[in-house]
Amino acid sequence: MGEHDEFSIIDQLFKPLAGLSREARGLVDDVAVIAGDPEHDLVVNTDALVAGVHFFEHDPLDLVARKLMRVNLSDIVAKGAKPYGYQLLTAWPRGTAYAEKADFVRGLKIDQDRFGISLFGGDTVSTEGPLVVSMTMFGKAPAGKTLSRLGARAGDRVLVSGYIGQGYLGLKALQGQLLGMSHEDINEVISAYHLPEIRLDLIQALRDHARSAMDISDGLLADADHLARANKLVIRLDVNKVPTSLSARAAIASGISPVALFTGGDDYQILCTADEVSAKALILAGFYDIGACIGLAEETQPGAELWSDGRQLDVAVKGFRHPL
Amino acid sequence: MGEHDEFSIIDQLFKPLAGLSREARGLVDDVAVIAGDPEHDLVVNTDALVAGVHFFEHDPLDLVARKLMRVNLSDIVAKGAKPYGYQLLTAWPRGTAYAEKADFVRGLKIDQDRFGISLFGGDTVSTEGPLVVSMTMFGKAPAGKTLSRLGARAGDRVLVSGYIGQGYLGLKALQGQLLGMSHEDINEVISAYHLPEIRLDLIQALRDHARSAMDISDGLLADADHLARANKLVIRLDVNKVPTSLSARAAIASGISPVALFTGGDDYQILCTADEVSAKALILAGFYDIGACIGLAEETQPGAELWSDGRQLDVAVKGFRHPL
Repeated sequence: MGEHDEFSIIDQLFKPLAGLSREARGLVDDVAVIAGDPEHDLVVNTDALVAGVHFFEHDPLDLVARKLMRVNLSDIVAKGAKPYGYQLLTAWPRGTAYAEKADFVRGLKIDQDRFGISLFGGDTVSTEGPLVVSMTMFGKAPAGKTLSRLGARAGDRVLVSGYIGQGYLGLKALQGQLLGMSHEDINEVISAYHLPEIRLDLIQALRDHARSAMDISDGLLADADHLARANKLVIRLDVNKVPTSLSARAAIASGISPVALFTGGDDYQILCTADEVSAKALILAGFYDIGACIGLAEETQPGAELWSDGRQLDVAVKGFRHPL
Repeated sequence: MGEHDEFSIIDQLFKPLAGLSREARGLVDDVAVIAGDPEHDLVVNTDALVAGVHFFEHDPLDLVARKLMRVNLSDIVAKGAKPYGYQLLTAWPRGTAYAEKADFVRGLKIDQDRFGISLFGGDTVSTEGPLVVSMTMFGKAPAGKTLSRLGARAGDRVLVSGYIGQGYLGLKALQGQLLGMSHEDINEVISAYHLPEIRLDLIQALRDHARSAMDISDGLLADADHLARANKLVIRLDVNKVPTSLSARAAIASGISPVALFTGGDDYQILCTADEVSAKALILAGFYDIGACIGLAEETQPGAELWSDGRQLDVAVKGFRHPL
């Protein structure tokens, strides 16, 4: 309290994030108001980050803010929805300096401008524990056309929007476990860990061509497994077709297991399926074809598999969760 | 992790809260989807509760869940919106037992059935700190008719939906600071503190007759002050007209300051203004007339005042925040 109590934090830091958006009502009216729009579905996602669990206690707060925004946008964009605006919850450790809150808000401002959205409303509270931040992100998709992880069919191709394993390697680098790599490679993967790519440029292609879609947050194999089970299919991924960066290949050369890249999480790329013809359009838009959906034969269980040169790889654990 | 990891918690505890609602997509699809509705505004509110700040560490978790729901519903209903559904964030202290999470969910279930809503989506995470729970609540109001704290005019009557001071007294009782009162009175105010009333029965009257409205969370005087300033008016409240319970009158008789009831917070009643004729309709619906909006004379500042028998009361602090 005192010089910077809850009201002055809202006035000085959060109101500029709301700007003139009609939905926010200048943050002076307790609620946000979203006008009904018959031409669009409102797509809603809530994801939270906790210090010591999802990020390091001493990570710069502008980067934490931007990661929070991106992990939320990731789900929205993967469903073919255009980012629209967000509700924010911040639970600050007691004694957090105004400057740290301002850093966090600065990060939000950079990314909300980049993604064309603004703050609609939220709450800011104190806690005796570590920082907890949560967002409820809104997006808009053409009415009735919001993509789902359901809808994949046997014969569909499986596609991914970009490099897999960057986030995992960034985490390893921050933990000091990535040795024998160049500074450039280290910086690249740390940057990918802090600031996953959000591909607004792929939204239209997804809407036009994908049959099912989701973002990859638990690891490529784990999320492909979720998608396969949801659709009662087998998904066979060809590890040699999964796109990886030069940094990732350097990491593999220095001893990192390639399978770890596909089970490590924190990718925030888009995973989707499409029929053969639509898959070609998605590849033209920038997606990579990495596998196929296969109907269940008798006695086979739904799920995802990694294959290499005609052999199935043995993978003990399909995905990691919150590895800090 | 182990027997009850994140996925099994979602399956066993949260899926039943989502039920068959179209918006939730069975909680299996990463996002919630709200169909565009041209006849309604979507009204959105986010409020969080933190153990040790907004509730006691050992409060029963079913009651914490219901209070979380009600503090969120309070804002929605005060704007003339009908409750519709919610996103939920839970950040659990590591090691929280499954039974405790189940208690929390049981509380949600009781109140969501009572208020006719269901879970749309959310996130569940761990923290090394105390429990943090947050909701983003959705309501629906007729398009363009969502009430605002703006809109009050000089000459408007000021009304309130029910007893003021119950939450404050409940807190005092839980802190062992309420002496000389009967068990019945103590139980009544503690119950009001844990479970503030949500008046769905007043929504239609608010829509039909109120000119401005908000809920009371920071204390009657503080929130009347917010409303007065937002509208550049003076609000004069007659303390003798503010409704208080028999328990509250017993507390006053036992030494509690009456002014404390009006500055203590945690009321979650509705504060609204209306012209003289509409005020009569609101009174018929159950509201109490407690004061008037007065235009600014030269040199007067906007704000709220407490008056009694023609004299203005001197109040040092207009409202308390998070008194735990």
